[in-house]
Amino acid sequence: MSQEYKLIPNNSLITDTPEQGRELAIKMARLVVKATQSDAKIREKLRPVYAEDPSMLLDVGKVVAIEFQTIAAANNYWNKPS
Amino acid sequence: MSQEYKLIPNNSLITDTPEQGRELAIKMARLVVKATQSDAKIREKLRPVYAEDPSMLLDVGKVVAIEFQTIAAANNYWNKPS
Amino acid sequence: MSQEYKLIPNNSLITDTPEQGRELAIKMARLVVKATQSDAKIREKLRPVYAEDPSMLLDVGKVVAIEFQTIAAANNYWNKPS
Amino acid sequence: MSQEYKLIPNNSLITDTPEQGRELAIKMARLVVKATQSDAKIREKLRPVYAEDPSMLLDVGKVVAIEFQTIAAANNYWNKPS
Amino acid sequence: MSQEYKLIPNNSLITDTPEQGRELAIKMARLVVKATQSDAKIREKLRPVYAEDPSMLLDVGKVVAIEFQTIAAANNYWNKPS
Amino acid sequence: MSQEYKLIPNNSLITDTPEQGRELAIKMARLVVKATQSDAKIREKLRPVYAEDPSMLLDVGKVVAIEFQTIAAANNYWNKPS
Repeated sequence: MSQEYKLIPNNSLITDTPEQGRELAIKMARLVVKATQSDAKIREKLRPVYAEDPSMLLDVGKVVAIEFQTIAAANNYWNKPS
Repeated sequence: MSQEYKLIPNNSLITDTPEQGRELAIKMARLVVKATQSDAKIREKLRPVYAEDPSMLLDVGKVVAIEFQTIAAANNYWNKPS
Repeated sequence: MSQEYKLIPNNSLITDTPEQGRELAIKMARLVVKATQSDAKIREKLRPVYAEDPSMLLDVGKVVAIEFQTIAAANNYWNKPS
Repeated sequence: MSQEYKLIPNNSLITDTPEQGRELAIKMARLVVKATQSDAKIREKLRPVYAEDPSMLLDVGKVVAIEFQTIAAANNYWNKPS
Repeated sequence: MSQEYKLIPNNSLITDTPEQGRELAIKMARLVVKATQSDAKIREKLRPVYAEDPSMLLDVGKVVAIEFQTIAAANNYWNKPS
Repeated sequence: MSQEYKLIPNNSLITDTPEQGRELAIKMARLVVKATQSDAKIREKLRPVYAEDPSMLLDVGKVVAIEFQTIAAANNYWNKPS
């Protein structure tokens, strides 16, 4: 069912745990790339480029960190409500 | 009617779902480019450049992630009020 | 009267609508460039450079997105108080 | 008296107006550069480099935008308390 | 037991102290790189590249700073509740 | 005693004044570089590189600005509680 959504799996920012929130951040970052470059063949060619470039790997880290800020806030940082 | 607005479709940050919020983030990012480079022909030439450049694709991801932070906060992260 | 202010038109972050908030974000970003490079002739030469460079256009998008975060928060995301 | 402080003039984030807050953001950004490169002669040589480079001007805009977020929050966005 | 988690050690953003929160930020940044480039041999080759490149070291600093913002907020900045 | 901590002097984000908060932001940014590049000789060689490069100086400014956001929030922007 999550396949129906192109940008946010399950159409929700809520996850059970921080680890799952982090996985969501990585997926959301990838889905923006997919929405910008819809040709799967080109994406396949680009992936190894940034995965072997230390500067681009750091850029991946930046994007994921920003997405995770949003997800963590949405989940009240996974703290139980007091 | 959303055509009347050049920078934010419908002139609102509120969306029904996270997926729609993400779509809005992508549109808002594109509309700033449009406002900066008003010549559609030049924009058409630039689009494939960044869509095939892994570093620029990551930059697209950064911009969208920042816009989405604002939209998600505006929508209280799509959580129902308690 | 907004001409009196060099960095923020009308000396206020408050706008009536999100669209106007977005316009303010773009203006504030430009006014920092103006404050840094006061020579109008040089600015005129630089403008087409970044307007035709996809990487710099994305950088414009980043700056505007950050400014807009501040403006949106200042306006409580244009939500009516509950 | 503000000369006593090397990083934040008057040792305060509070300003009367948004315009003054923006001026403070620009000063704070410059004072970090000064703290990192203490040699005034070198700084004088570097200034025209970034003031004539469109990419670096955008970077100046990014730094100022981030500093301004902090200053605006410190001043409750210059809204009067309700 | 923290080995079970690939992206966030112990699957929690909560730490006892700011110092430990900072360590977590560094680990989380590294684990995103690991998730993006799963080949340990390639990662080993890339590490010295960015550790000796001043621009990339600053990029590491940016990623860690963003991750730390999230962790610090999750821990209420390590202030005791009033 | 602050020597015991490798990432945050005194293991605290709390400072008496904004100026001291800014000093802490600069130190925290440097300590991440130190944690990433532990060889003091290499760090000594890299320092003049970024201190004379206008683009990297702006990057230093970005990192410090982000760290300072966290520190300022931790200190409630140095406003007295109302």
